[in-house]
Formats: sequence, C-alpha cells, structure tokens
Amino acid sequence: MSLPAFDDDPAPTLATFGESMLRYSPPAGERLETTDDLAVHVGGAESNVAVAANRLGCEAAWLSKLPDSPLGRRVERGVREHGVEPLVATGEGRVGTYYLEPGGSPRGTSVVYDRADAAVRTATPDELAVDRVREADAFYTSGITPALSATLAETTEALLEAAGEAGATRAFDLNYRAKLWAPQEAAATLRPLFGHVDILVVAARDAATVLDRDGEPATVARELAADYDCDLVVVTRGDAGAVAAHDDETYEQDALATDTVDPVGTGDAFVGGLLATRLAGGSVPDALEVAAATAALKRTVAGDAAVVTPEEVAAVLDGGGDGIDR
Amino acid sequence: MSLPAFDDDPAPTLATFGESMLRYSPPAGERLETTDDLAVHVGGAESNVAVAANRLGCEAAWLSKLPDSPLGRRVERGVREHGVEPLVATGEGRVGTYYLEPGGSPRGTSVVYDRADAAVRTATPDELAVDRVREADAFYTSGITPALSATLAETTEALLEAAGEAGATRAFDLNYRAKLWAPQEAAATLRPLFGHVDILVVAARDAATVLDRDGEPATVARELAADYDCDLVVVTRGDAGAVAAHDDETYEQDALATDTVDPVGTGDAFVGGLLATRLAGGSVPDALEVAAATAALKRTVAGDAAVVTPEEVAAVLDGGGDGIDR
Amino acid sequence: MSLPAFDDDPAPTLATFGESMLRYSPPAGERLETTDDLAVHVGGAESNVAVAANRLGCEAAWLSKLPDSPLGRRVERGVREHGVEPLVATGEGRVGTYYLEPGGSPRGTSVVYDRADAAVRTATPDELAVDRVREADAFYTSGITPALSATLAETTEALLEAAGEAGATRAFDLNYRAKLWAPQEAAATLRPLFGHVDILVVAARDAATVLDRDGEPATVARELAADYDCDLVVVTRGDAGAVAAHDDETYEQDALATDTVDPVGTGDAFVGGLLATRLAGGSVPDALEVAAATAALKRTVAGDAAVVTPEEVAAVLDGGGDGIDR
Amino acid sequence: MSLPAFDDDPAPTLATFGESMLRYSPPAGERLETTDDLAVHVGGAESNVAVAANRLGCEAAWLSKLPDSPLGRRVERGVREHGVEPLVATGEGRVGTYYLEPGGSPRGTSVVYDRADAAVRTATPDELAVDRVREADAFYTSGITPALSATLAETTEALLEAAGEAGATRAFDLNYRAKLWAPQEAAATLRPLFGHVDILVVAARDAATVLDRDGEPATVARELAADYDCDLVVVTRGDAGAVAAHDDETYEQDALATDTVDPVGTGDAFVGGLLATRLAGGSVPDALEVAAATAALKRTVAGDAAVVTPEEVAAVLDGGGDGIDR
Amino acid sequence: MSLPAFDDDPAPTLATFGESMLRYSPPAGERLETTDDLAVHVGGAESNVAVAANRLGCEAAWLSKLPDSPLGRRVERGVREHGVEPLVATGEGRVGTYYLEPGGSPRGTSVVYDRADAAVRTATPDELAVDRVREADAFYTSGITPALSATLAETTEALLEAAGEAGATRAFDLNYRAKLWAPQEAAATLRPLFGHVDILVVAARDAATVLDRDGEPATVARELAADYDCDLVVVTRGDAGAVAAHDDETYEQDALATDTVDPVGTGDAFVGGLLATRLAGGSVPDALEVAAATAALKRTVAGDAAVVTPEEVAAVLDGGGDGIDR
Amino acid sequence: MSLPAFDDDPAPTLATFGESMLRYSPPAGERLETTDDLAVHVGGAESNVAVAANRLGCEAAWLSKLPDSPLGRRVERGVREHGVEPLVATGEGRVGTYYLEPGGSPRGTSVVYDRADAAVRTATPDELAVDRVREADAFYTSGITPALSATLAETTEALLEAAGEAGATRAFDLNYRAKLWAPQEAAATLRPLFGHVDILVVAARDAATVLDRDGEPATVARELAADYDCDLVVVTRGDAGAVAAHDDETYEQDALATDTVDPVGTGDAFVGGLLATRLAGGSVPDALEVAAATAALKRTVAGDAAVVTPEEVAAVLDGGGDGIDR
Repeated sequence: MSLPAFDDDPAPTLATFGESMLRYSPPAGERLETTDDLAVHVGGAESNVAVAANRLGCEAAWLSKLPDSPLGRRVERGVREHGVEPLVATGEGRVGTYYLEPGGSPRGTSVVYDRADAAVRTATPDELAVDRVREADAFYTSGITPALSATLAETTEALLEAAGEAGATRAFDLNYRAKLWAPQEAAATLRPLFGHVDILVVAARDAATVLDRDGEPATVARELAADYDCDLVVVTRGDAGAVAAHDDETYEQDALATDTVDPVGTGDAFVGGLLATRLAGGSVPDALEVAAATAALKRTVAGDAAVVTPEEVAAVLDGGGDGIDR
Repeated sequence: MSLPAFDDDPAPTLATFGESMLRYSPPAGERLETTDDLAVHVGGAESNVAVAANRLGCEAAWLSKLPDSPLGRRVERGVREHGVEPLVATGEGRVGTYYLEPGGSPRGTSVVYDRADAAVRTATPDELAVDRVREADAFYTSGITPALSATLAETTEALLEAAGEAGATRAFDLNYRAKLWAPQEAAATLRPLFGHVDILVVAARDAATVLDRDGEPATVARELAADYDCDLVVVTRGDAGAVAAHDDETYEQDALATDTVDPVGTGDAFVGGLLATRLAGGSVPDALEVAAATAALKRTVAGDAAVVTPEEVAAVLDGGGDGIDR
Repeated sequence: MSLPAFDDDPAPTLATFGESMLRYSPPAGERLETTDDLAVHVGGAESNVAVAANRLGCEAAWLSKLPDSPLGRRVERGVREHGVEPLVATGEGRVGTYYLEPGGSPRGTSVVYDRADAAVRTATPDELAVDRVREADAFYTSGITPALSATLAETTEALLEAAGEAGATRAFDLNYRAKLWAPQEAAATLRPLFGHVDILVVAARDAATVLDRDGEPATVARELAADYDCDLVVVTRGDAGAVAAHDDETYEQDALATDTVDPVGTGDAFVGGLLATRLAGGSVPDALEVAAATAALKRTVAGDAAVVTPEEVAAVLDGGGDGIDR
Repeated sequence: MSLPAFDDDPAPTLATFGESMLRYSPPAGERLETTDDLAVHVGGAESNVAVAANRLGCEAAWLSKLPDSPLGRRVERGVREHGVEPLVATGEGRVGTYYLEPGGSPRGTSVVYDRADAAVRTATPDELAVDRVREADAFYTSGITPALSATLAETTEALLEAAGEAGATRAFDLNYRAKLWAPQEAAATLRPLFGHVDILVVAARDAATVLDRDGEPATVARELAADYDCDLVVVTRGDAGAVAAHDDETYEQDALATDTVDPVGTGDAFVGGLLATRLAGGSVPDALEVAAATAALKRTVAGDAAVVTPEEVAAVLDGGGDGIDR
Repeated sequence: MSLPAFDDDPAPTLATFGESMLRYSPPAGERLETTDDLAVHVGGAESNVAVAANRLGCEAAWLSKLPDSPLGRRVERGVREHGVEPLVATGEGRVGTYYLEPGGSPRGTSVVYDRADAAVRTATPDELAVDRVREADAFYTSGITPALSATLAETTEALLEAAGEAGATRAFDLNYRAKLWAPQEAAATLRPLFGHVDILVVAARDAATVLDRDGEPATVARELAADYDCDLVVVTRGDAGAVAAHDDETYEQDALATDTVDPVGTGDAFVGGLLATRLAGGSVPDALEVAAATAALKRTVAGDAAVVTPEEVAAVLDGGGDGIDR
Repeated sequence: MSLPAFDDDPAPTLATFGESMLRYSPPAGERLETTDDLAVHVGGAESNVAVAANRLGCEAAWLSKLPDSPLGRRVERGVREHGVEPLVATGEGRVGTYYLEPGGSPRGTSVVYDRADAAVRTATPDELAVDRVREADAFYTSGITPALSATLAETTEALLEAAGEAGATRAFDLNYRAKLWAPQEAAATLRPLFGHVDILVVAARDAATVLDRDGEPATVARELAADYDCDLVVVTRGDAGAVAAHDDETYEQDALATDTVDPVGTGDAFVGGLLATRLAGGSVPDALEVAAATAALKRTVAGDAAVVTPEEVAAVLDGGGDGIDR
C-alpha cells in the first residue's frame, strides 16, 4: 500500500502527557529474585505513543514532571533520544520504577510496580507547558494518568479541556491497570473525561471490566462512539485484531503474526501509528493498517519504544517477512 | 484448582543426597569449541528436587560431600541461595563439572561431563548427616548417585535403610545416565534398592532400557508398583505426560506446552512438585498436576533450579498464559 | 546413514577466493540505531564454504587480500581460528564491513553494507597464491567476487582458468546480491564464467532474476547443466529444499526444520557440505543430504561459520532432535 | 600472626538488626544518567557485618522486615547466599533501594537513595525474632537503623535492652548518614542508646559532627568509653587507621594500602572482623589487626559483602601481596 | 568558588559544525585483533564541545551531514541524547568510523580511523542551517573539519564569516591530526581562518608542529593573540595545564589529577567548559578553572561526551575527592 | 632502537611442547565463590612462548596431546587463532583447567588448578610430531612439563635429545610450580635435563628454592651457565628486571613499568621475545630489551597470549607512553 505522506512539511504536531518510568528487566530466563543484572529502559504509555508517532513523521512533545536528579534525567534522556521533545517540570518526588520479568508460556510476563510517590503525581497545569498542548494538532493521554492521583485526574481534565478549546484532536486510551485502581473507581473518573475525547481507544477486555460493555467489539465501538460523541472509537483485542467505529461505519483490522522479543508497548505503538496516519490525513482503514503494522514491528524490538521507520511499516504492509534483505 | 496448603506449619521436611555440579554453558548459539564466556550454574538431581520442594513449602536439606575450596563453596552457595540447607562433608577430590551446550532442533542440547574423581564419590554414612535423614518426613535420591561409585552405591542403600527405619517416605528417581554406566550394570545395582523405595519415578525410556519393561506406561507403572511394593510409581514420558499407579488406580497427567528457555532440571522439578504436594497431604492426581506445572514453569527459567512460587503454580493450573500481568 | 569417509588420509583439498568482512550485529531485539554494543564476527561466502568443508574433513585454504592493520588481522584470525589457512595478500584499502540486524517476523533481518573500497577489490592473480589453487582438488568462488570490481571479475576468471588447467573441480555459487549490482550486469559478467564451472549452485530466485529462468527447479537445473556443460547443478529454494541435476538424473532434497539462531551463512554451509561429500567420493544424493544437514546445523550456531562436526551431521541424518544427550 | 581459633566449635553466635537494600550500580565509567545496565547487589550495614563475621567463623543471623515480593526475596537471598540466616518479618512497604555511581578522583563515588517507605521502617519487636537476639553471644546494629523512623528508634532500643538482659555483647556503629538526618537529631536519638552498648565504633568525622568531639582520636575514644561505660570504643579514620580504647589502654591500628575495586562496606567489614575476633576470644590488638585486614580485603571485592576467608586474612597479616599464587 | 550563573535565562546559545563518528572500542585489555565485542559511542570534537557546553547551561546545536541510514541515525541520536540539537543535512556518503583501542602504559591508546568518504565531506553552506549559526551567541569548529576535504575547508570559512557578520563569538581549536594531513598543509589552510577567530585554542605541541611556534606557552599565546587579533588564546599542555592570553594579560591553569577511565574528549570538554563560562559572562581565570574541572571530570566518564553537571564542576573546584557521598 | 629483522624470509622456526589449559576467570572484583560468569582463555607456558615468538616473526608450532572433545578443540583453537600451528595427538584424558581469580593488593591473584589426569600426561614421543622438533631452529619447553608425570619427564628428555641431535637451539624455563611438586623432586628431575639446554631461563626465586642458589643474580647466572654449559642463562626477578650470562659477560635488563591488566603470561612473553630476537640474529642485550618490552606489553593485554606487534615492541623501546596515537 502507499502510506500517507509521512514526510509532510510542516509535520503534524502531537503533545502527550503522562508518567514515564524507569523499567528494569532481568535477562531472558532470569528471575527478579535471582538476577544480578538489570537492563534499563524508559517507558510510559504517553511517551511511547509520542515516540511511535514521531517515528512516523509527527513532531512530538511529551509533558511530565520529574525530580531534578540523575534518575529523573535518565528518564528525560530516554524520551529525548528517540526524537521526542521532553517538556518536564521538576519537583519533589520519586521517579516511578517498574520491573518487567519476561516469562513466556505458561509463566507469562509479570510486572512489579514501584511507582508510589512519583513526582508526576503532583503535576498541575500551571507548572506544565499547556501552551504546547494548545499549539499542537493533537493531544494524547491515557487512563493511567488520572489513575495516579486525584491531582492528576484534575490535571488530565484541564489539559483535555485546553486542547479542546484550542481545536486540537484529543485522543485517549483507556489503558486500565488493575494494580492501580478498582474498575468502579476507574469508571467514575474516566467517564466524565470521555466527553472531551475525539479518538477513544479501548481494549475489549477493559470495556467489559471498567465500562460493563462486553458485547461484540463492533457494537461496543459503535455504542461508545455514540454515547461519548467520539469521531473514532477503536476497540482492540490483542491477537484478535481491532475494530473501529467512525462516521457510522465499522472497520475490522487483523493483528499480524510476530516473532515477539518484547510485548510491552504494543498497544502504544498501535495508537502512535493510528494517530500519525490520521494526523497526516490518512483514512481510518489506512490508519488501522499502519497501527497494526507498527504494533507488530514494535514486538520485534526490545524496550517500550517503537523504534521503527515508515519504510519498515510499508514493507510490513507489503507482506513483511523473515528473510534477509541483502 | 486449590493447591494443598503449602504453608503448613510446621512445614514438611525433606532430605536429599547426591552430587551437585558446577554447570558451565555458553551463550545461546555459541559452541563450547568457540565460546569466550561461560555462565555458571549449580545443579544436580538431588539438590534440584530439594529446591523445587522448598519453593513449594518444604523445609529441605541436601547432603553431599565437596572439597574445601572456592569451587566447593561455589556449589554449596548455589544450593543455599535457593533456601535449601547444605549439609556438606568436606574431603579430597574434585568438584564435578559439566558443560551444557544448548542447541535446539536439529542439533539438540549436548552435555559434556567432567565429573571424574569428585569428592562425593567417597562419601560414607559416617561423614554424612544421617540424623537429618532420620528426622525428615521424606528422603530422596536418584539412580545417578549409586552410578558414581561402589562406595556411593553402598551409601545410598544405607541412607535408604536409615530413612526407612525412621519411618520417612523414601522417594527415588531412576534417572539413567548412559554416559555413567551400562543398562545391565544399572539394573543390577538399582533393583535391590527399589525394595527400600516408597515413591518410584522412572522415565518410560529408562524403564525399557534398564528394566526391560517397554509396555504401556500404565502397565509398567502398575507392574513396578507390584514388584517392588511401592506406594506410588510414576512413569514419565517427557512431552507425552506421565502415568501414575497408586492403590490399584492409575492416573494420567498431560505435560504442558512451554516456551522453553532451559530444559535441564525439568524432571527434577516434576519430582519436587510431586513430593511437596504429597508431603502436604495432597492426593495423587493433585500431586501430578502440581508436578506438571512445576516442571513447565522450570522450563521458562535459566539454570537447573525451579525458581517458582506456589502462586505461579496455581496460576498455571488455572490456565497460565503468556500475557502481561499488570 | 553412513557418511562418506570424512577422515580420508590424505584429506581432499579445497581452495576458495573472495572477500571476507567484519560483521557487526547488535544484541537480539536491539536496533542499529540504538545499540551500544556490537558483536563481531567474520564472514564471507568463500571463507564460509572453506570453513564448512574443513569441518567435514577437507584441508581448506582461503585466498584474499586485506590491509596490514588490526582490522585486517581480525578478519584473517576469524578465518584461521576455524582451521582454514588464510593466504592473504596485503595492500591498500579498507576492510569490508557489514552490519547485520536480526529481526524476525515481520521485520525480517536486514543487512547494511559498508564495504566500498575494500583492499580485496584490487586483488590480481600475481599477488595471490595461485599455486595453491592449482594444487587443490577443488576451487570455489561465488558471484559476489566478480561483483565487487572489474579487477576482481578478471581475477575470478583467471583463477577459474588456472584451476581448470590444473584439473581441479571448479565450484561456483551464483549468490546474487542486489545491493552490489543490477541483474543484467550480473548476467553479463557471470555467464562467461559458467563455462569454467563444474559444480554450479544457484538459488531458484537468482536463476529467475539474473538468468531469466523461472521454470520448475528441476528443469532449470537440467537446462543450466546442459547449457554450461556442468557436471552438477544444484538449484536451491530455501525452506523448500533443493534440486540437483547430474548425469541426466535429477535429485530432490528437502530442507530440514530448525530452531534458527542465525540464518546468515546457511547457503554457504550447504555448499561446504556438498563439496566435502563430493570430494570425499560421496554420491550426489549423499552430498545433498549432507549439505542440507550442514545447512540446518549452521542455523543453530551464531556467526557465519558452520561450526559443526561430522558426528553432528550424521546424527541429524539419523533423525536429529531437540533432546538432551547425557 | 596466628589468628584466634576461628573454627571454634560451637561457633560464637551473632545477631544483627537493620535494613538491607537493593544496590544498583552502572558499569565502571558509566553514569546513572546514561546507563543501560545496572548490576544488582544487596547491602546494608547490619547484614554486611553479619556476613563478615560469618566468613570469619561466627554463626550469624540478620533480623529485618521486607515485603513478600520478588524484590523482598531478592534481598533475603542476597543475605542468605553468604551464609547468614535471614530472620525476616514480612509486611507492607517498599524495598529500600540505592544507586551507587562509582567515580574515582576527582568525581568521587556518589550514592542516590530511593529508600523511603521501606517495610523495615515499621518493624516492631513483636514481629521480630527477639529470642534469637537473646540467645546470641552478641548483638549488633548501627546508627542507620534508628535514623529510619521513630518506630525503628524504639525497636532498636528494645533490642539492645533485650540483648543486654540476656547477657549478650552489644555492638554499635554510629554510622552517621547526612542524607537521613541532621546531626542534632542523630545525637538526641543516639546518645541514650549508647548506655546499652558494650562495643562502640565511631568514625572520627562522625564523632566531631554528631557528638561534638573533635579532639585526638585516642582522647575521643577514651572519653567515649568513660562517658558511656563501654568495654571497647574504636574510633576509625579511613586511610589513617583506627584507635581503640579498652581497659584504660589505647591501641593504634594502621589501615592497609589496597587496590580498591569497591569501597562500599569497608567499615562494616572492619566491624565484622573486630567482632569475630573478640567473640572468638582474641585480644583487642588482634581484633584491630583482623578488622583492618578484613576491611582491606573487602575493598578488592565487588559488592557490599566481605567475601573473604580466614586464610586470606591470615595471609594479609603475614604480608599480603599482589603476586600470583601458583 | 562560585561558578558563573549557568542557569541564566535565556541560556547562551552555541552552534558548532563538524564531523561526528561512530566510535568502536573493545573491552579493557582486549585487542581489536581479537575482540568479539565492540562498545559503540558517538564522538567528534565539535559535537563533544556542544555537549560539554550544553551540560553547563548553554543551548547548543550541532551542524553536520550524514547519510539517511541506520548508522547515520545512530550518530544523530548519540548527539541528541545528550541534549544537543542535531541540525543534520542528509546525503550520499559513509558514516565516519573510528576504532579506539585503550592501552595504558607502555602500550598507549591507539586510534584506527575508517573515516574516508564520509557524507560530511561534501557539506556546503547551502545545505546547512547557517541561520542557526547567525542566531547563536557563539560558533565553534576545529581544525579537523577543514582537514577532511577542500569543500569542508571552504564551508568552514563560510560559516566563520557568517558567524562573524552576525556578531557571534567565533571559537576554534586547532586540533591537528597527523593521520589526516601534513603540518604544512594544515598551516596553509588554517592560518587564513584564524583571522576569523575570536577564541583560539591550540595545543602547545600543535603550535610547534603546525605553526612553528615552540617557545614558552605564554609567549606563544601572546604572539598568536597579537598576530591573529584574537580576544583570547589558550595554549594547552595536557597534564601540564594551560596558559591563556587575553587583554595583554596571561593566565596559568593547572591540570587536575584524575583516575582516568577514558581520555578521549578531554580537550573538547576543556573547550566546552571554557566557552560555557565565557558565554555566561565569567572571567578568563574562572573560565580556565571550569575548563580544567570539566576536562578532569570527563576523564572519569566512558565515551567522548562530558556527561557532567555544574554541581560536579563546582565540587571539583571546591576540592573534589574520591570519597563516598552519602 | 632498531629491532632485528623480524620479517626475515624464511622466518626462523620454533617448536614447543607442553600442556595448555582452559583458563577460567571471573570478572574483576568477583570471587570464584560467587561468580555467575567465567571468561575463557587458553594458556600454557609452552604455547604462550610460541605465540609471543610467532608475533615477533617466528614460525611456531606447539606439540601437545588433547582429548578429541569440544573442550580439547577449544584449547587447540585457542592456540591456532594466534597463528601458532597446533600439532596435537589425541587420546584419553581430561583437558587441564585452571581458575584465575585476579585480586590486586593486598589480596593478590590466586590460581586454582583442576588439571589432574590431563590427556597430555601420557604423551610419548611416538605419538608426537618429533620430526617437527628436529626440523625447527629451536625447541622450547619448561619445567612444568616434566612435573606433570613420569611419562612426561621422559618425553621431555627425549624431545630435548632429539632437538639436540638435530642441531636445534634448546631453550628451557625452569618455571617451578609449588602446587605441582616439591623442590627436591623438581631438582632431581630437572638437573639432568639442563645438560641438554642451550638457553636456560630461571626466576631468581626458583633458583633459590629448587636449585639452592640464592646469591647475586649475576653470580647465579654465571654459575648456572658454567655448571650446565649453557650458551645463555637468564635469571629473572619480576619487577626488578633480569640478568643474563653469555660468553663470560653479564647483562642487566630493567623491567618496565606497566598499567597491568593481566599479569599471567608475563614470563612467557619475556621468553618469546628473547627467543625471537636471538633466532633472528639479535645480540643478547637486544634480546633482553625485546624480552622486557614484550613482557611489559603482555601485561596490558587480557589473557595468557602476548598479542603484540613488532611495531609496538619498537615503540616501547623508543619510549612507549600512555598517550593517544591519532
């Protein structure tokens, strides 16, 4: 397929807001309980989305708050190195940390959070670069952010409002994290936010758990679009692909088979590919295809960030492969 | 399923006896012939079983003999760090060493032994903590131990007798090693020991090679139970699962599919799970399920030791998965 | 099967000629764009074939040209360590380098060449050990060599002629590299060389692209054998196996399933196994079987070199496996 | 010199109480801000002292509190592997973590603490193995423990009292940490504890900062011994050695020159060597010599733990060296 | 001392222009000829100076030209991650590469260049962000740039002229590289450039070799300042410190003793510290002190980049140390 | 200085005989007792000397005996990769192994041997390439070889005799290893061999311990030369340099200061440099200078092998340094 012109000049602009954490993971086959070595990555839904969109042609910035410390600077560097501009307030608090222990079947991959009292939990609009949100073509955050503190729930709403007033496209991924809050609590906080959202992405599992919608994905997507007056709702189902509702149409997108090296960040890569295509003027089915390809490529790359190129996405859409290109 | 109460207080106690070795393995894809790096693990059937049982709630001790040297202490430390108490006599001799070269199809995994003249080969009951065998709820050793020397064959019998006199459950895994002795030699040495055994585990392949029994696994299990008056006989068949004979009943247990990182120690994890469940009062089918889950989990972990938790075993029995738990 | 006597004394001798490069690859899952570490291997079609043949009993030498520098010596050492004698002229120029970024589906494995101006591009017969070519039982080079420079195209022809005059078996693998030259250019250069070739190996894909032959592999093989008066033509099709034409017969050989660690050098291992068997007096079907087994084993080994043993090849032909041999 | 009989049977017993943390450090020359890899060690003054004493013949146990999590078990394992018995209460809270960035002149080594809200901060005597403190020949803790929380200050006093009532030798290292509390706060909390202390170790620098005693080390030692009625007071001065006051005598001990690999834990190794010698019946000057040698050896070993042997300590006291022993 | 206000708002701006390369180095003690691993860093005098200045408060941008390839992006990322904005034209050509083999006495550290035909060699002003040079408070390049090609010699002069016309401070480090050109050739190309330079840095050794000035450093500095009408000339002498001439005064600065991990980039860190201080309004002696401290800190850090903080520079100027800060 | 023509054509030839072992060493600062990783090197006095001589222009071959196993081939490869031809008989027995634990002051470096029952211990002249000894310009072995077994003591004498009859220069390094035999035993075995030796190298310490000669080194050298009718006797004293006696003259040679990465193999590099110079026709003082420089360079290289070049030796003799050559 021919991708939308990812090299538009000027590039579309995206601002995101959320927590990014230090991610520590032991070597393959090692357990946290025994390891003598940890690989350091930086990740968080909102910076991951910014990176994926940036790799596909957007100019992306990431707003957050970190302590002024070597660890805070490590996080900032881990975002900047991928080409995303970090707009970081500094203040008291920890750097959120999480441990990723890759498993494989039947053990599965397990996550241990050590993210209490992170500096970002006290972030208020007046210390953040809200102007950059207003100037952007789109603003993105996820349901993880308001889960972190009451302050962040307010800040999230304020930023969505600011983006809306400025005419930016507002994108939101529900991203329910059971280790952060209960479904009812999530529902109560998130539902009011959805009224500020143009593009809503939600895992079918989360739609059932948090929003009590466990019907056919297409139905769920259409209903959510109607209820919250969203331009586009995408319901994702992991290996089973995704379904989108837009302008009274529904679109299906298969997931691609992958040799997975690192599954973390797959959903964020999907959203990044989706946003980059839509912001570049691509159709919804094109955006879904790019999203699926970006997500699949992400799984072949270690770390949270979707270090991929438009050419690689195009190659996947043209058939991909596991051969040697020489 | 609900597991047996692995947190019984007091915990059941297990003593094992055998050789543990330094295991050296090159990185994935490297050959012994070319490698510049070796990863060091510690393993041996009897300490592996002790570790697996300990992880599932038993208080476990491992009897052996090692030289008083940095290498000897490295082995001792490699057992102790997993929570098993090493009861180690010291004396002349080498530290057994083996090289594991992981392959994958069609090369397979190959083992090179360098275990001649290990200190353990001269271990006699009078230098071992036989009291701890007598005090334990169960005693375990495997067919590798009597294969190592005539002295060890005698010591094995003496420990089985001591355990029996003290009323401990005696468990034994045939564990035939073609690189150590011939089938006839193994049969001649092992058959007399089986009379002292309550729980006998034997690979179907070994039953055929060593014991000349190549019928249906269920038949083999029943016949062995009858011939040697065992409370429980388990015949294992790798990917094809296991069959148990107990109280005139036979039980079948499937093996679980796994993303295997390290196959070494799978059988020992199986036995450890089996013993821990039985010692905690679990039924034979429960013990087989826990054994299969423990074995499957072990395959996702690098090294000989089954570094798993009761919660992980329970999760596997509830369906397992390869998702991300967050 | 019983392999041909790979331990013949005296061993058959093989000389090869071509470029070998430093190969740099990031750890699994890392991208060239982000990596902080590169693993160093040495590889090139002609030294790879020499290594594989040497591992299977041939006395092999590799002719090339390198700068007198640490990097040049690194390449020489990377060939010598595998038991192949490097016969290296020294002169001005770079050391060819290539970057291998392993992917996996759907990203695939990508190769970035940085091989311009390599010293070997100016190699002429008068600075090479042509005597060793004349003394050898067989001479091998590939279509990569004449692709590198006009000088090397001439030198390739001169060495093939020298080998032919001396009665050596001349083997040639078309090995088309799209990043080096266009199909027409390749065809124009290579066709005249084929008249000097006894054993011709060509990928079905290259036969179509370069030689405009895209019929049934067996037909392609027979036609090429007829057109260029070759003793043996083998058409390879990756996972789909290979077909050979020899003495008016065609032979089919399946490829073997593998747990692939490193696909680079598979074709060279195939050729090395083929040549070693033929030079030891093996039949064409035996040579194809050994070739397929050597290629399959290579895929389980990191690096370009087929570090395998005749015993391993025999084991694969006897059924192989992924078990543990102890 | 001939060391005291470190192999006494029964071995002297030591109990310690305090926090041990995960220690993360980047490779030499890397900065926290840029590193992609962290080495994991486990350390804390009180478990370090237990390890050092255990290596020199004491039976040592370490009391603490940790969450029941992979990270909690990692800490426990990091103590147990060295032969010290962990007696760990479990409860809510984090695992204390610290980052060690080794520098070298003129950058120096820097420590970043991330130890807030550690589970140990709520440890009370009723959840700790106070019986083991009472049964021990000696009890040790340091000024870091009461610095962590008011609860721990109370618990520290309660354990010192329990030890005193049971007749155990009570040892205490002032160990002032400026990143934990102010000098006045430390003084107010620690002074009352000193009345329960038999062996007091204090850095000359801390004596000045916290206790306002900046006179000659020998004077400081004598005065402290008198003021708090201590059996032994040791004032340490890093490279400048140590001075001890005991029974109206003062003793001087030089520090040994070392090729330092890792300076962390030097002071704890000193205390461990001192206690092990005293508990084995050694004289004060012997204890100082062993302490200095243990501390010097520690500096050649990576990690907080003094992985040394009595033979190595004896060799250092006999002259040490940097040759090769073969 | 109190540093100049490195947190001025707005921050001073610096633009630099030059080649940055991939730097490959084997582990300590390994030789290029034998190594299986290479650590990847990115370095070049002009990006190194930009990084050092950025770390000390400047907003820095680096102009260059790279191929649009994974290797080109690796270089760009290696600059961006340190906070410097890469302004990179893309075009044909290689990525310059160099190999660094650290030695130590008496072997020394050796550099092998593989930088021929780098894309930057064809960079012309019309493809570079000259506007950013004009807008900057200062512009920096070194004698390496005009050494790379005649085109770059012209481009260097054009950029110096553009900077001069815009009123920017122009800084230049002679940086003679014997492996790139002969002294006479360097002199002929560089002398005309010096007329465009405000701050000239030159190693005493280069002043002698290239400029035929081998007198007392202070004399050399004064004469160069007079001859080329420079505001500031600094003559550096490695371990022997530096001498500066400014406004008819000369200033001496000692070098600091260091535990050196990586000597590469020391001079660039010196220049970065010098420029950052001067641009922030610091005096010449202050700038020399900061330069010396930045250079000393750089030597404790692996890689070309001076990953230091203003606080660390201040600590060094206050006495530094090799202790542990906790 | 100008070195002797190390590029003589034909090159001088050297044959050596002895055991080479796998050497396992933990990372810097790690202990054998705790390490999870071992670096693999190959070393042995006689192959080390062959490597050093080969690097300086000799054509060198190494005779030994190894098992036909991956470990045996690893040793062979570790010699061949450095350019020395391995002439290896195969037979039963182990591969000698040793563990090197680098320490630093005051711990020192310790060696743990695991070399019992190595295949080489049964090597007899009829299975070795004695013809190659006869054809060589020089033959070298050391006192380690006859220490390994009575068979090897006989084989050593037989090879020395064969070399002598053929007119080869016979070189011998006493190389006393206290862990292999007692001084009296060594003296009784070695003294008779000295009659077959032309060039005798002996550490001053060994001369005292084994040969009861503890006078001035020059005196010892002269007396040994006289007693055993040697052409050249070199007495080495580590850091204190060496003294040689030749033709009634004595020569002194200082040791060079080094930044030592790996001290193992220093003496062998010394002997290799000495032999290469003498065989190329260099004078005794030149040979001592080259020997000292080669030894010093070796210490900067990890592993037993002196991976150095004649250019580097010449640079050291011209002053060496720790600067950067670019």
